Amino acid sequence: MTAYQAPLDDMRFVLRELAGLDDVSALPGFADATPDLIDAILVEAGKLASDVLAPLNPVGDREGCVLENGAVRTPKGFAEAYAQFVEGGWNGVPFDPEYGGMGLPMLVAGATFEIWQGANMGFAICPTLTQAAVELLSTHGSDELRAIFMNKLVSGEWTGTMNLTESQAGSDLSQVRTRAVHDGAQYRITGQKIFITYGEHDYTDNIIHMVLARSPDGPEGVKGLSLYVVPKFLVRDDGGLGDRNDIRCLSLEHKMGIHASPTCVLAFGEAGDGAIGYLVGEENHGLQYMFTMMNNARLAIGIEGVGVSEHAYQHALAYASERIQGQVSGPDGEWVPATIDRHPDVRRMLLSMRARTEAIRAVAYYTGAALDIARHHPDTDVRAQKQALVDMLIPVVKAWSTDTGIDVANTAVQVFGGAGYIEESGAPQFLRDVRITAIYEGTNGIQALDLVGRKVARNGGAAARALMADMRSLNVDLSKHSGVEDLSVIQSILKKAIDALEEATAWIVDTYPEHPDTVAASAAAYLELMATTTGGWLMARAALAAHRRLDGGENSPFLREKMRSSRFFADQILVRAPVLSATVIRGWAAVMRTDDTAP
Amino acid sequence: MTAYQAPLDDMRFVLRELAGLDDVSALPGFADATPDLIDAILVEAGKLASDVLAPLNPVGDREGCVLENGAVRTPKGFAEAYAQFVEGGWNGVPFDPEYGGMGLPMLVAGATFEIWQGANMGFAICPTLTQAAVELLSTHGSDELRAIFMNKLVSGEWTGTMNLTESQAGSDLSQVRTRAVHDGAQYRITGQKIFITYGEHDYTDNIIHMVLARSPDGPEGVKGLSLYVVPKFLVRDDGGLGDRNDIRCLSLEHKMGIHASPTCVLAFGEAGDGAIGYLVGEENHGLQYMFTMMNNARLAIGIEGVGVSEHAYQHALAYASERIQGQVSGPDGEWVPATIDRHPDVRRMLLSMRARTEAIRAVAYYTGAALDIARHHPDTDVRAQKQALVDMLIPVVKAWSTDTGIDVANTAVQVFGGAGYIEESGAPQFLRDVRITAIYEGTNGIQALDLVGRKVARNGGAAARALMADMRSLNVDLSKHSGVEDLSVIQSILKKAIDALEEATAWIVDTYPEHPDTVAASAAAYLELMATTTGGWLMARAALAAHRRLDGGENSPFLREKMRSSRFFADQILVRAPVLSATVIRGWAAVMRTDDTAP
Repeated sequence: MTAYQAPLDDMRFVLRELAGLDDVSALPGFADATPDLIDAILVEAGKLASDVLAPLNPVGDREGCVLENGAVRTPKGFAEAYAQFVEGGWNGVPFDPEYGGMGLPMLVAGATFEIWQGANMGFAICPTLTQAAVELLSTHGSDELRAIFMNKLVSGEWTGTMNLTESQAGSDLSQVRTRAVHDGAQYRITGQKIFITYGEHDYTDNIIHMVLARSPDGPEGVKGLSLYVVPKFLVRDDGGLGDRNDIRCLSLEHKMGIHASPTCVLAFGEAGDGAIGYLVGEENHGLQYMFTMMNNARLAIGIEGVGVSEHAYQHALAYASERIQGQVSGPDGEWVPATIDRHPDVRRMLLSMRARTEAIRAVAYYTGAALDIARHHPDTDVRAQKQALVDMLIPVVKAWSTDTGIDVANTAVQVFGGAGYIEESGAPQFLRDVRITAIYEGTNGIQALDLVGRKVARNGGAAARALMADMRSLNVDLSKHSGVEDLSVIQSILKKAIDALEEATAWIVDTYPEHPDTVAASAAAYLELMATTTGGWLMARAALAAHRRLDGGENSPFLREKMRSSRFFADQILVRAPVLSATVIRGWAAVMRTDDTAP
Repeated sequence: MTAYQAPLDDMRFVLRELAGLDDVSALPGFADATPDLIDAILVEAGKLASDVLAPLNPVGDREGCVLENGAVRTPKGFAEAYAQFVEGGWNGVPFDPEYGGMGLPMLVAGATFEIWQGANMGFAICPTLTQAAVELLSTHGSDELRAIFMNKLVSGEWTGTMNLTESQAGSDLSQVRTRAVHDGAQYRITGQKIFITYGEHDYTDNIIHMVLARSPDGPEGVKGLSLYVVPKFLVRDDGGLGDRNDIRCLSLEHKMGIHASPTCVLAFGEAGDGAIGYLVGEENHGLQYMFTMMNNARLAIGIEGVGVSEHAYQHALAYASERIQGQVSGPDGEWVPATIDRHPDVRRMLLSMRARTEAIRAVAYYTGAALDIARHHPDTDVRAQKQALVDMLIPVVKAWSTDTGIDVANTAVQVFGGAGYIEESGAPQFLRDVRITAIYEGTNGIQALDLVGRKVARNGGAAARALMADMRSLNVDLSKHSGVEDLSVIQSILKKAIDALEEATAWIVDTYPEHPDTVAASAAAYLELMATTTGGWLMARAALAAHRRLDGGENSPFLREKMRSSRFFADQILVRAPVLSATVIRGWAAVMRTDDTAP
């Protein structure tokens, strides 16, 4: 069976045709991000993924991590792979060259993230956390903090962690009890955090914890939370490592998946007066900083869903093209033994996996490009407009890519049949690994609430309407190709989907002010509707681009297959939009009925 | 957190209002199956499940089975629990009193199966296999074989296994290589079987293997397969255990779930001239016998899906009603801390789990009742008509209950949030356990092909039309209650669903003869359509029955909640039927396109 290969053809197509890589490369500061350079980067990333990270993926699952005397031993080969990753400069792809980064667009960084996550999610979540720490420090950290920490975090010589959750404070961070007290210019942090990804490990000699804690004398609730940077080892003035800080890994969680990623319970300051920490930005703004950062982290988690989907698809495809069961009619009408990828229901599963993976990739990359424009475009209005689009689409990408990732991984198990239930086949790991992505960085339910409330209702649906205007404009383009059956079918289904999204959006905007709970009961369906329609729109754009290039004489199996997956997506996924709209508008009645005791 | 409780209220409601327990009890031979007796049986089964089996469920997952020197050690407490199960006579619920069984309807046995599977699937799959062996022997075994094996299998003193799969022969049993040769009146069996559930264990002192093997001098393919009974220990004339037969457990599979259930690779006859086996029925009819038996086994697997769904729902509900996160507005308008079951999106998830579990239970029990009528009704025509219904619904129950079970278990993980990803929460086990049910006993893809081909197209859609006529008749009843909002909404959605099923059925019947592959590409969607509509119809019947009883003055939270779950099912699940129909009729185009190399 072939190992994971970075899906370079589809990445190139999505970057160029759907995400608008040329527009992104034309932004100020990205002059070096030429198509050739970007292509070379993806090719190299693909090699590291195929040669080093993907082969370790089952090893990480099997071995997991071990905690001994407060130290965590990661699976064999992982620390060496991380060293190679750092050596290659991969940790710094999106970061400021001032701190040693490559300074490439988030769009490009997102494509490399997909490759790392696809190859080995348990490994790749580590640099994802470091990225979050870099973002927090570069946006809110003082010059002094940045001087101490940024270069080593950008290079990956040190890694970063996010410390939010406590056992009583999950989705509800107002319940955080970890507290900070003044100690001269610094702070002392005391408390216990749970679910800390890579909270302790043996990849690097220092770990930089970003800790949400209650400010000294801060108010109750989320407004009393500040953000502190709390390093495992204090840093001396000369940049070398000083004393060990009072942070201890008490235990590792026994998780369903991503066994290579140590999920820690961390105790801060249990031995004495508190772990030494440094305030990031201003007091009592901790949650706000975390949320700004989290927006991008959520995009990264959505991309995890894309990466695992792709790998699960490749894994199932490879099996289906080798496993012989049953027969099909041969060229002379006789029955001949067939690999299972010849059987219609298996073809359906494989095409469904591929089409949905392509769709979530398209939406994620499209959002990544919008993020680059929102940050770097010279025109303030364009920046604001794109930021509103990004804010709206990020919960969509996070929830839809991860729910789809779970579904695709589940389908991969099914394609394997009986072998898919046996761990040695490798199929269960994708499902067990990707399952967390719908939960962490804000559950998908939280994403849906964020979408309907802050991102749609609060701006009166303006961002949604702007997106739908783009969709309608494509629909007009498509209608000029009514002689092409695929495009004609896609156009007709897309039109109904946009109508459905428009109707549901109007309902959300109208209903939210008086009945936010009713809208909350419909939030998940609305997110699925917006995701499906946005995905369907981008797949329709893909079909149109493929048609034009094929019509222009390109003889490309890839483009013909893109037509096919776009058609499938319209026929089997986008077609659901009107029902989702009906569910949004009318599906909440039974949910909100509270006559009796059952929830 | 409360442990599993058999859902007796819903079981009673479904048995009485939807499955027609009174009609079943009135069948010849079931005079003893009074409502009181049946209720007492379910109550007692519920006790064994809550007190003994459910507490062992996480133990089985954690410990798994160990193979040492050819012997399998099951997890601590399981052999004792099995002894209690046998002691209580539970193994014999549906079996002929002639052999020591209780002689109760399959409908009632199905309800007890749900309880065992719900409490502890890894345990309960063992008696499910024994049931299959009993069925094969009682239907096709000679008097002599029945005299030797039946009583001990019915009591559960010995267990049974099914040996079909070989590494090259999964869904395609024509590839079976295990072979039998004559040895006087008996046979010698040589070969290797895989995926043998409870192929070796320490519950009982004998194991009776039902083995599909190539007949001596039989033709190629499936027509050369016979069924042999091959006991672990030969049975002496006095009924005592004789020599050990030449059967060896080579290894145990390392599975994603049901760790308590040993899945064995079995070698027959590797030490000498072959394991001693006895022919069941006639030579070369092995597969036919297996398929007849498998029909009922498939119903049992569907019921596994129901049982695990129920337990996963209860587990999530218990957590959601204890876990405090966030706030809701209190009686005086102030914000008060809330358990998560008060939040609309969590309510939606919980209600969705419950409504879908109730719907799959309704369809499974309805099918179980039809099976009893098909076997025991005095009128040949009624028997034939019900058998056609059962044949059609069994693949529906098997696939839909198990796909739904996976989805419900997946939702349970989500309700737990971060804790749901940690094995100690118990949530992942349901998802890992139930995942196999969509695969074994014929993958759900195979079920869909069976439905569209043998069960719908082959009889010109007659069985489907008969079912739809029943659905239409309910729709007329519902339309007499247009003043009751729930019933009016349900009626309107149900009508569209029946129309959709009718249209798709006509397409299947028309298309299959010339284009079976096209229909195969749409088979999964058709199965989901028929399942959804049948489930929606039974939930609508439930709503009508609940309305009548409430209208008659019963003050029952259960009945009000049944109205609520029925309304939810219509609003959010049944409403999808028209889209599923469109997918059946028009969704295959991209799947069947084969211009290029990608499947």
